Amino acid sequence: MGKIYVVGIGPGNEEYMTAQAKQALLESSVIVGYDLYIELIKEIVRGKKTQSTSMTKEVDRCKIALSHALAGETVSLVCSGDAGVYGMAGVMLEVAQPYPDLAVEVVPGITAACSAAAALGAPLIHDFAIISLSDLLTPWEKIEKRLMCAADADFVICLYNPSSRKRRDYLKKACEKILLYQSPSTNCGYVRNIGRQGQETELCTLGQLKDREVDMFTTVMIGNSQTKVINNRLVTPRGYREL
Amino acid sequence: MGKIYVVGIGPGNEEYMTAQAKQALLESSVIVGYDLYIELIKEIVRGKKTQSTSMTKEVDRCKIALSHALAGETVSLVCSGDAGVYGMAGVMLEVAQPYPDLAVEVVPGITAACSAAAALGAPLIHDFAIISLSDLLTPWEKIEKRLMCAADADFVICLYNPSSRKRRDYLKKACEKILLYQSPSTNCGYVRNIGRQGQETELCTLGQLKDREVDMFTTVMIGNSQTKVINNRLVTPRGYREL
Repeated sequence: MGKIYVVGIGPGNEEYMTAQAKQALLESSVIVGYDLYIELIKEIVRGKKTQSTSMTKEVDRCKIALSHALAGETVSLVCSGDAGVYGMAGVMLEVAQPYPDLAVEVVPGITAACSAAAALGAPLIHDFAIISLSDLLTPWEKIEKRLMCAADADFVICLYNPSSRKRRDYLKKACEKILLYQSPSTNCGYVRNIGRQGQETELCTLGQLKDREVDMFTTVMIGNSQTKVINNRLVTPRGYREL
Repeated sequence: MGKIYVVGIGPGNEEYMTAQAKQALLESSVIVGYDLYIELIKEIVRGKKTQSTSMTKEVDRCKIALSHALAGETVSLVCSGDAGVYGMAGVMLEVAQPYPDLAVEVVPGITAACSAAAALGAPLIHDFAIISLSDLLTPWEKIEKRLMCAADADFVICLYNPSSRKRRDYLKKACEKILLYQSPSTNCGYVRNIGRQGQETELCTLGQLKDREVDMFTTVMIGNSQTKVINNRLVTPRGYREL
C-alpha cells in the first residue's frame, strides 16, 4: 500500500512553505490538486505525475488520491494555506475510512488568517475566531449565530470566503450582525492575494467595511474592542502592564 | 537604521519552519528570543550574536531588539509557533511605535492550533475559535464568557495554555463552562510537545477531558457537535453531500 500526504502549501509561492511540506511533495510520485495550486508549486513537482479537478470536486480529488495510494504510490494531495483549515484533510480522512491501514499524514501550512495577520500587523495576538461566509455547505443561520456569538465575546474575527459573485452582499450582512455588539469605529483590515503577485492590504473601520466590496481572494480581519492602529498596522494588544 | 523581523519558527525543529522564516534568520546579525526557542534553531543561527531573557520578559526582549535595530543591525526576534498568535509581533509593534520609519516585518509560522490539528487528524476543518486559558493578562471572567459564547455557537475550540502549576484546575473549569452548551460525548483531543521529541496525542470525550491533567506544553482541541473519530483521528466534517 502507498501513502497519502495532505499538504498545506501556504498562501502563495514556495517561500511560505515549510520544509516538511516541500519534502512531502518531493517524496511523492503523484500530485493531486486544483490547477491553480499545482501551478504555484510547479518548480518543485516538475516531472511528476499531476492530476487536477475543478474547484468544487473535492471528493473526486480525494478518490483519485486514494486510488493511486491503494495502487502503491506515494501521493500528495495539495491545498492552499493549511490542509486542516477549510482544507482537504477532513474529506480525505473520510474518503479513506474503509482503509484503516492506509497511512494518511496531514502536513500543516500557513493558513490565510496567519498570513493576513502578518501582512496587516498583529491583529490575532489575542483570542480569535475564524468564520467562513460560504453558505454552500453551511446554513446561513448558523453562520449568523457564530458571527453574533464571536462579536458578543469580543473575539477578533477573521472571515474566510467573504464574497463571491453569487454572494455579493454577504460581507455587508456579516458586518451588520457584528455591529449589534461592536462599535462602528472598531478597527478592521483586509488583504487581497496574500503571498501572491499583487498583494494589497487595506485598513478601515467596521462601519466602513460594511460598505466595501471585496472578492473571494480576500481575507478580512475584524478587530476586537482593544484592537488599534499603530503606524498604519493593525495591532491587538495582549495587555502588558509595562507598556 | 536596521530592520526587525518578528519570526514565527513553528512548533519545533527546522522541518516545520517556512523558507521565509529561515531566510529572515540567516539575514539577521542579531537573534533575540527566549532560550528554549534559540536552542531549537541553533544550527541556523550558529555564529550569530544571540540575546535572551527569561519567559515573562517580553517587553524587555522587544526593547533589546529595538536598540540593536536603531544601531543599524538586522535583528530577528524569534517566537515559537506563529509570531502573530499570542506571539511577540504585537508587543514589538507597540514598542517600536515611536520609530515609524523603522521596518518591522512579521514572518508568520505554523501556530500550535494548526500543528496540533494535523497531529490529531482534521478537527479544524470548519469554523473555530482559539482561546488562551492564561489569566495572567486577561480577566478570568472574560475567558469564561468567550468559552461559553464559542460553545453556544458550536465552534470547534482550541485551547492554548490550558494549565500551569498555579492554574491546575483551569481546564476543568473551562470544560464545565463548555458543558453548559455541548454534550459530554463531544469528541476532543490533545497534543503534548507538538513537533518536538516525545510528541504524544490523546483522544477523549469532553466529559473525560474535564478530569484530565495536562501541562503547559499541551494544546487542547474540543470538537463541535459534528466532530467525529475516524480510524482514531479527530475529524470535523465540512458537510459534503456526496459522502
